Amino acid sequence: MTQPTTPEAGAAVMDLNADLGEGFGRWQLTDDEALLSVVTSANVACGFHAGDPSTMRRVCERAALHGVRIGAQVSYRDLAGFGRRAMEVPPDELADEIAYQIGALRVFAQAAGTDVAYVKPHGALYNRAVTDTEQAAAVVAGVLRAGGALPVLGLPGSRLHEAAEEAGLPVVREAFADRAYTAAGTLVPRGRPDAVVLDPDTVVARSVRMARHAAVTALTGEDIAVGARSLCVHGDTPGAARLARRVREALEAAGVRVQAFA
Amino acid sequence: MTQPTTPEAGAAVMDLNADLGEGFGRWQLTDDEALLSVVTSANVACGFHAGDPSTMRRVCERAALHGVRIGAQVSYRDLAGFGRRAMEVPPDELADEIAYQIGALRVFAQAAGTDVAYVKPHGALYNRAVTDTEQAAAVVAGVLRAGGALPVLGLPGSRLHEAAEEAGLPVVREAFADRAYTAAGTLVPRGRPDAVVLDPDTVVARSVRMARHAAVTALTGEDIAVGARSLCVHGDTPGAARLARRVREALEAAGVRVQAFA
Amino acid sequence: MTQPTTPEAGAAVMDLNADLGEGFGRWQLTDDEALLSVVTSANVACGFHAGDPSTMRRVCERAALHGVRIGAQVSYRDLAGFGRRAMEVPPDELADEIAYQIGALRVFAQAAGTDVAYVKPHGALYNRAVTDTEQAAAVVAGVLRAGGALPVLGLPGSRLHEAAEEAGLPVVREAFADRAYTAAGTLVPRGRPDAVVLDPDTVVARSVRMARHAAVTALTGEDIAVGARSLCVHGDTPGAARLARRVREALEAAGVRVQAFA
Amino acid sequence: MTQPTTPEAGAAVMDLNADLGEGFGRWQLTDDEALLSVVTSANVACGFHAGDPSTMRRVCERAALHGVRIGAQVSYRDLAGFGRRAMEVPPDELADEIAYQIGALRVFAQAAGTDVAYVKPHGALYNRAVTDTEQAAAVVAGVLRAGGALPVLGLPGSRLHEAAEEAGLPVVREAFADRAYTAAGTLVPRGRPDAVVLDPDTVVARSVRMARHAAVTALTGEDIAVGARSLCVHGDTPGAARLARRVREALEAAGVRVQAFA
Repeated sequence: MTQPTTPEAGAAVMDLNADLGEGFGRWQLTDDEALLSVVTSANVACGFHAGDPSTMRRVCERAALHGVRIGAQVSYRDLAGFGRRAMEVPPDELADEIAYQIGALRVFAQAAGTDVAYVKPHGALYNRAVTDTEQAAAVVAGVLRAGGALPVLGLPGSRLHEAAEEAGLPVVREAFADRAYTAAGTLVPRGRPDAVVLDPDTVVARSVRMARHAAVTALTGEDIAVGARSLCVHGDTPGAARLARRVREALEAAGVRVQAFA
Repeated sequence: MTQPTTPEAGAAVMDLNADLGEGFGRWQLTDDEALLSVVTSANVACGFHAGDPSTMRRVCERAALHGVRIGAQVSYRDLAGFGRRAMEVPPDELADEIAYQIGALRVFAQAAGTDVAYVKPHGALYNRAVTDTEQAAAVVAGVLRAGGALPVLGLPGSRLHEAAEEAGLPVVREAFADRAYTAAGTLVPRGRPDAVVLDPDTVVARSVRMARHAAVTALTGEDIAVGARSLCVHGDTPGAARLARRVREALEAAGVRVQAFA
Repeated sequence: MTQPTTPEAGAAVMDLNADLGEGFGRWQLTDDEALLSVVTSANVACGFHAGDPSTMRRVCERAALHGVRIGAQVSYRDLAGFGRRAMEVPPDELADEIAYQIGALRVFAQAAGTDVAYVKPHGALYNRAVTDTEQAAAVVAGVLRAGGALPVLGLPGSRLHEAAEEAGLPVVREAFADRAYTAAGTLVPRGRPDAVVLDPDTVVARSVRMARHAAVTALTGEDIAVGARSLCVHGDTPGAARLARRVREALEAAGVRVQAFA
Repeated sequence: MTQPTTPEAGAAVMDLNADLGEGFGRWQLTDDEALLSVVTSANVACGFHAGDPSTMRRVCERAALHGVRIGAQVSYRDLAGFGRRAMEVPPDELADEIAYQIGALRVFAQAAGTDVAYVKPHGALYNRAVTDTEQAAAVVAGVLRAGGALPVLGLPGSRLHEAAEEAGLPVVREAFADRAYTAAGTLVPRGRPDAVVLDPDTVVARSVRMARHAAVTALTGEDIAVGARSLCVHGDTPGAARLARRVREALEAAGVRVQAFA
């Protein structure tokens, strides 16, 4: 992955996306209601790593009410592993699994008076599609199969974005408020102890800088470009919704319009 | 369940429906290709009792090619029991599970250039919705939630058809070529040894009589009315496709137009 | 269900049981560690309504460390419904599913240096086995199939206990500290608003009376007999572990020995 | 993988193993009854890639009756992919999943009056454990966790066998009657068109030579050593049971004792 060649420096508009509806039946993970009052885009789990039909419906209804954009958070079929275990799924199967998930979510988005507006892979599939050309192409094939030419939310420079662009799908670049970056502009792998930025003040400050100046300080100290139209905030940790709210307020205070992508 | 009050006696048009795509991953059950050259409506499994995404896509593509109508064969979430174990699913959950399945199938039907044209419950849900007002209403709620006012294929006089009609959904009455009927017009329960008509010649003769005269001989000898626009032929037994073909040929030889419902 | 004919009035010994390990993968429900320092018997989920292998292992290891007895909390195969949706499972299938779960848990109990010491059905299966002779017999058949003549924890007078006794299995009667009873000695169904006793002081007082006097006041005011060797405390609500601790302390203060059944 | 250093040349004893019970609920794959009259070891699916509890029980009962050894055919948790999609499962999770499967099968083996006698990984896990040190170690950890020091059936020279030997577990080397070998003694990957030997006469002749002379001709023409105590015959193709019988008869005609390993 290379640095984005056209960082949207000083972009005054930023989307905030978070994972929602990541429960399953009796189990709930995210404070969906609190997050829906903060974010502008909801990555809704579609049943393969999380997300039962009733949770999907409820999140869609509430997202529609809040005016929050609904995205399909597609995943490997792996409830036991929460979609965090990479799988060697044959490309055609993977494409069909992606399409299936989008279709299932679309029913609830449309029933809520809106529609699925974008696609974002989850967990191990997200990571895999950054570097794996075949799986990246399979995800894009699944999005195409599902129709509607949905934008693909992902990491700038990822194989996923390359495949999407080749296929004529819109891409939306995202940055991570609370993840450390390497000097090359990639994310520090989760396995490493310094992969996640824990200090809330730092998360907030980085968010503002990303939005205002399309830049972030790498773990090794260099300033790097991170052109992004969407900022991912995490929703599955205690205090996540509160931190997301602080990020939003800081962005707005800095003159950034917090708004979903077109 | 009462006898249909307006049997479509002498109806010269009959739809043939069969369950298709009832495999899952490595396992296949039905000879989809052979059946698709015979039936006019395909009840496609949607992943809850059977039906992985790739099988769903393939069946939809082949059905579209053959000009066969695609229906969502919705089920309880029960792969281990093949949807044949009745479940006490809370109505709202059940409705959402129905909608989810329809949405997932719709993606593949639309990708194949057509659309989901109707809904038919599978197995234990089908039987339950004949007599259970609450679950019948939940299935209808799920169909409504999925949008498109899809026709509901079911047993004449069933709670399912009553609920569908109340909700303004079209209903399509079906009869069973190889199932024994009681004098009251209901099906003899599968548990009983005489529930299924095994002799192919009898199945064929009954089919023609059902289509031409809207009548069948009950197990106890009475002639009863069975007004039906669609005839269900089974696909998951050896020789099923061949028998279905014989039924179709006999219908056509008897002047019945074999054609999907509108 | 009739009142227990031989209430163990004044029993000075009481087991405390709670459901543990009711997570699945990323999702956790119960504060297992806190509960393990309070209860004497742990009903461990076995993977069918909850309970992934790693959670099962960890709970077994911790239970063994705390000297807490391990029981197999067997369930319908229904992750999406958390085992709370009654299912019409054919008896032989159900028996095999029960045996499968016990065997899976046994591996982790034995690896922790102990063993599965009893069986308790979960959720809808528990309720069903109170009144349904066929499913009660199937659960018992499953316990027998698993070997070891494991005691069956259940409601006094239940079909389950009758079937277990007929089969020569030990039965252990349990009472519910926080569930309302009818005058007939049955539990007030969960659907009703007054089914659960919410006030902690009342829960504690009832527990002591159940243990000391084998009696409880029914919802309608009558004193009824509740002979029980085990008291079920719930673990899946906020504050559950704290309430369980209060119950235990009150029992001990009242001279009740809190101790697992033999 | 290197060639086996001590090929059991001229071994007069050979085990025949096949995968059995690879159905799930309504779906069946293998002709278990026919295979049980031929093989000496049955690799029984344990529910993760195939194998519902009732199928497991029936296969164990029939295997016990036929005097066929029962092995746990452990797999990734992947019904949709039949365990053929490699997964990045964290080692501890994988070990627990292995132990869980062994424990579940043990119940049915013991109920049938016998016991689980060995472990063989299935599909993608089998292939992964040939070369992946971490997953091989995790499988072995799972076998240890399950107790009983079960022998591990696998490819000579595999990481799996190395890990098993390090852990003090017995290893049983297997060869494949119908799979092509490279000059290095490894299997030609399934993806390649010449990976499987299709001609029945060749399969039979190779089997005899493997058993009598511990040798096979590689795809590239070289004679290589294949020391094996067990020969794997496949059960999931049409005619599989008949071919397995031919192999057994040819072995016996050539003076090979067909017998399970100790």
